[in-house]
Parts: sequence; C-alpha cells; structure tokens
Amino acid sequence: MSELRKDPINGRWVIIARNRAKRPEDFSQDFRTESTGFCPFCTGHEDSTPREIMSYRDHHAAPNHPGWRVRVVPNKFPALGVDGTIDKRGDGIYDLMNGVGAHEVIIECPQHESSMARLPVGNIREVLWVYRDRLVDLKRDQRLVHGLVFKNVGALAGASLDHSHSQLIVTPVVPISVQEEMDGALEFFKYRGRCIYCDMIQQELATHSRIVLETSSFVVFCPYASRFPFEMWVLPRHHSSHYENIPRQAIEEMGMVLKTVLTKLELALDNPPFNYIIHTAPFNSTEVQHYHWHMEIIPRITRVAGFEWGSGFYINTVAPEEAAGFLRDTEVDTSSWNVA
Amino acid sequence: MSELRKDPINGRWVIIARNRAKRPEDFSQDFRTESTGFCPFCTGHEDSTPREIMSYRDHHAAPNHPGWRVRVVPNKFPALGVDGTIDKRGDGIYDLMNGVGAHEVIIECPQHESSMARLPVGNIREVLWVYRDRLVDLKRDQRLVHGLVFKNVGALAGASLDHSHSQLIVTPVVPISVQEEMDGALEFFKYRGRCIYCDMIQQELATHSRIVLETSSFVVFCPYASRFPFEMWVLPRHHSSHYENIPRQAIEEMGMVLKTVLTKLELALDNPPFNYIIHTAPFNSTEVQHYHWHMEIIPRITRVAGFEWGSGFYINTVAPEEAAGFLRDTEVDTSSWNVA
Repeated sequence: MSELRKDPINGRWVIIARNRAKRPEDFSQDFRTESTGFCPFCTGHEDSTPREIMSYRDHHAAPNHPGWRVRVVPNKFPALGVDGTIDKRGDGIYDLMNGVGAHEVIIECPQHESSMARLPVGNIREVLWVYRDRLVDLKRDQRLVHGLVFKNVGALAGASLDHSHSQLIVTPVVPISVQEEMDGALEFFKYRGRCIYCDMIQQELATHSRIVLETSSFVVFCPYASRFPFEMWVLPRHHSSHYENIPRQAIEEMGMVLKTVLTKLELALDNPPFNYIIHTAPFNSTEVQHYHWHMEIIPRITRVAGFEWGSGFYINTVAPEEAAGFLRDTEVDTSSWNVA
Repeated sequence: MSELRKDPINGRWVIIARNRAKRPEDFSQDFRTESTGFCPFCTGHEDSTPREIMSYRDHHAAPNHPGWRVRVVPNKFPALGVDGTIDKRGDGIYDLMNGVGAHEVIIECPQHESSMARLPVGNIREVLWVYRDRLVDLKRDQRLVHGLVFKNVGALAGASLDHSHSQLIVTPVVPISVQEEMDGALEFFKYRGRCIYCDMIQQELATHSRIVLETSSFVVFCPYASRFPFEMWVLPRHHSSHYENIPRQAIEEMGMVLKTVLTKLELALDNPPFNYIIHTAPFNSTEVQHYHWHMEIIPRITRVAGFEWGSGFYINTVAPEEAAGFLRDTEVDTSSWNVA
C-alpha cells in the first residue's frame, strides 16, 4: 500500500507509491509514449485492463466485453488503493497516513483515437457525464474528501498511452492546490460578499481581450495571470461550486465547448501535449457560495525549470491577451458536429 | 518591460515576459538543448554575452577578456529588468507591477564543461562564493526583496545551453514557495520555540535511513516527503537563515559536499537532468530564528502530469529511504579532489 506523507514545513502531501516503483536504472530519459502496437484500451482488449467499474454500453452488451462507448476501470498501477483504513499517525515530527483512495481511468472511446477533439460531440458529452457519475458515487465513501479529474495528452504531459483517456484520483485529504483556491476565494467572499470567480467572469466578459469563447452557459478565457502560454480556463457562467451538480443541459453545451477549444488548441499549436484538470469543491459540502468549479487546460509547450520549482513564480512568454486573440482567430467549423 | 501579475485567487505571481516571447508556431516540442557547436559561455567568446557584472580572474586580466575563472553576466533574455520603478497598481480585480528585478547568469568555468561535478572543488567553491557576493550586492537595492539561485542541467530540466552555469533571479516580491516555507516554519517556531529545519536535521541524523552524506558542517538527506525520486536537500548543521551569511570555512566544506553528492547523482542515475535551488530568507532581515537556508536538488527523471499540476500532490515512486540508501552506497573516490 502506498503512503501519504506530509511536508512538515509547507503542508504539501506526497504519495509514496512503491507499487509503481522502478529500479534507479529503469528511469528512462526518453519521454516518448510507448507504441508497441498493442493498445489495452481498444475494444476487444477488455481483458487487458482490470475489471470495469462502470460503462455506458449498448443494452445487449455484457460488462468487460465489446459494445461500450465509455468505460471506467481501476488504474492498473494505482497511486492510491481502495482497501483499508486511513490510520493517520506520526513519525517523530512527521505525519503520514495510508494511501487510501481511488484511482480510476476513464477510457473515452472504443476505437483507437488519441485526440479527444476528434471524438463526436455526443461521445465527449458522455465522458463529461461519466465524470459526474463517478464523483457522485465516490462521494459516498466517508474516508474520502475530494475528487480530481484530469487528462494527460502526449508523453511530455505525462501520458503513457495514446488512446484518448482521462483519470480520476480521489483522496483522503483535500489537495493543497484546491485548498489554496478555496482559502483565497473564501477570503475574497468574506471581504466582498461575492464569488471571486463570478467577478472574474464579469471582468473578462467586459474587457473581452482574454476571452476565447463564450456561450450561453460557459465562458472560456486565458487567465490574467496565466502560468503557461495558451493556458485556458473553462467556467460555468452560473455559480456552482461542485462539478457533480452540473445539469444535463450544461453537459450538452460543455461537450460543444470542450470540442471547440481543444480543436482550436490542436490547430493553433499543432497538436501540443497538454493537461486538463477539473477543480471542484470537496465532498464535505453540497454547494458553497465562495467557490466556483472550473476546468484548467494547460498546454505543455514550455519547460518548467529550476526557477519555477524553487519560487512558485512562473515565467510566461506569451501574454494571455495575445494567446486569447490567437485562439479566438483560429477558426473551427462546428456546423457538422451536432448532426451525428 | 515584463509585468508581474498576481493570481487573485491563490496569490501566486506570474512574470509575463513578452521580450522573451515567440510566435505560437515557434514552440518546439523538441526538448533537446541546442548544440550548434558555438558556445557563448566559453572563454574567448566574452563578446557573445552582455558585459560582465563581476568575475573572479587573474590579476593581469581585463574584464570581458580571457583570464577569468567564474564570470557573472546579465541574462541575454532577462525575465526581469533592472531599470525603472515597480509601480504597483490595479487592473479591475487584478494586481500587477512592473517586472523590475535582476536576472543574472553565473558562468561556472571558462572551459566547455557541462558537468559541475567534474569541476575542480576549488572552482565549485568560487561559484558558491559568487552566489554570496551577488546576494550581498543586490540586497542593497531597496526595490528588491529576495534572491533565488538556481541551476538547470539538461534540456529536460530547462537548460538551453550545455556549458556549466547557474542563474540568479532577484524579485520585488517574495516568491510564494519561499513565503510558504517561511510561514510554515514560523508557525512551528511559535508553537515549539525551535527551528523546524534544525528539528528535521536532528531526526534525520538519529534515524539515519534518509541520510546521503554528513560532514562536520553539513547534512544531506532525501526529505521525508520527497516530491521527486532521489530529491536531496543540503542543509548547514548550524542554524542560519541567510545563505549570504555563510562563513568562508563553510563554503570550503560545501564545495566538497556539492561535488560529492552531484557525483553520486551522476553515477547513480547516469547523468540525469536536474535542477538545484537555494532557498534563503528574504532581504528584509539579516538573521531570523525560524528559517534555515538550504539547497534542494531535484533530479528530473519523472514526468509531472495533470494530477500534480491540478492537485499540488506529487506521486513519488521511489521512497526516500530507498533513494538515500542507493545514493549512500554509490561510492565516490574523493581522495584526489583537494590536491589540485
């Protein structure tokens, strides 16, 4: 079982996952994804993954057999395990607990497609709906407090398999990045009585220079203090703290929004490696006024060096206004998307 | 001039450095360092860099000409500029200031050597002494509050040139990573009346399992909550908050320590890309009881993926006890080092 250890100085948690370990000589400096020709995520290879947790599939099709459209399986090399107790304890001045949690893989399509942007919009909507289903289910586990949905595309962004997929890690402590956002947003709320994300949306729509896309329920912009070139945030216009509360009609729209911005990204930057993550409020509440769920899309086209690791400062060589202008001007033909 | 922009939610600052900007199509996904054959850092090529700020050189040698041993020049593409006023101001709900600061390059040797570990120990001591000199000098600038020394080795760690060098960025705000350490250490100090780093040193020496090296003035260990496989921290055993207060005798010893642990790293992991950074207290004090300067050495042999970016959690597949054991067992012959 893995261990969660806390840095006693800054409070950051680290997962020591020995079951994923390699010998020192196994650390390859080659960052390409493996392409052995065999893909365990393709339909027909269902027995190459752990047994599925859920899937959206045709009525006649049996679990762990072809006939699925989106499929969720446990990660074969999980960072956290579902069994056991958390057992928080000390080790001298240090704190640790058992690595209890969930680590799931969402296989987004049965065919061998590496680009989410090229999936039919209906397919993307089902992926977004699966995220919600898994969060609703895992929220019932009293040991767990937060779920983080994320996606790695391309070896430089940490992907080890090409087939379009995302992941969900549910943790027994709130991730420090989410906690810092919650704390900062709460401070703003105490002072101004408003959600800071709602204020950002208002200012972004008014100035427009950082807007990439706006629809009736969503706004996509390059954030004012973008850490990375072409970073984009997707926010629901109506205040909501928990992703899993998303209404079906918003999922419908978000499918189009996500396909559009990911297509723009692929066209503008020639299929860059990227990550996306969904930041949503912890499980211990159903809705809070000060936090606003959102998706952060991070192209991985620059190197993170010593300065960034050491300072927490980021050096971004493309102003978000330029990035947004470039992404806005990247034309995407969406006319045929809702047909199939 | 670049801009410093603050993320209004988590308080993190970003440097928007348009002078370093590229067009979107210029973002290469190829992470190799350039090897055009011409090195601007080699002796004889002094006119390929901006004019030097300082150097250690033979008595007869003129600045910006051969005869130097360690040379400091402004970064040719600085993230921050030395001229102008900070001019803190608002932009609606956002905060920004001018990108005032210093961005210097420390060229560590005149010959074309890419490995600091292969430099003579006397050379490494002079590099460590230059760090001190530059911090002492820049501390006088009332606009600036903190100096971060860092090193990028290998393209995957962000280096764009092979020739052994490090950098110094001095900022008009305290970097959030340092501030978080200062805050955490202060909290501990208030509660226990002791420096948390001193306590860590004591516990590490007692348990020994994470110790890589100990000398009379320094201890090197893999931290309990290591974010990365084979991460190492170098700490002075005697409490000191500011690197620039380091006594000459400690520099002498640190030269040997650094050469030893970097040699171990090169041997153990086959010349991995890595970063090191020096965390030292801000300029606004001369010595504080709760903070303890240290160097963090981070091998860059694993990928940072969406989960890490989104959560602030790190997944480390090599327990620090295993990493330290492996590094301890990596034999280094230091017998000839102090001769030349």
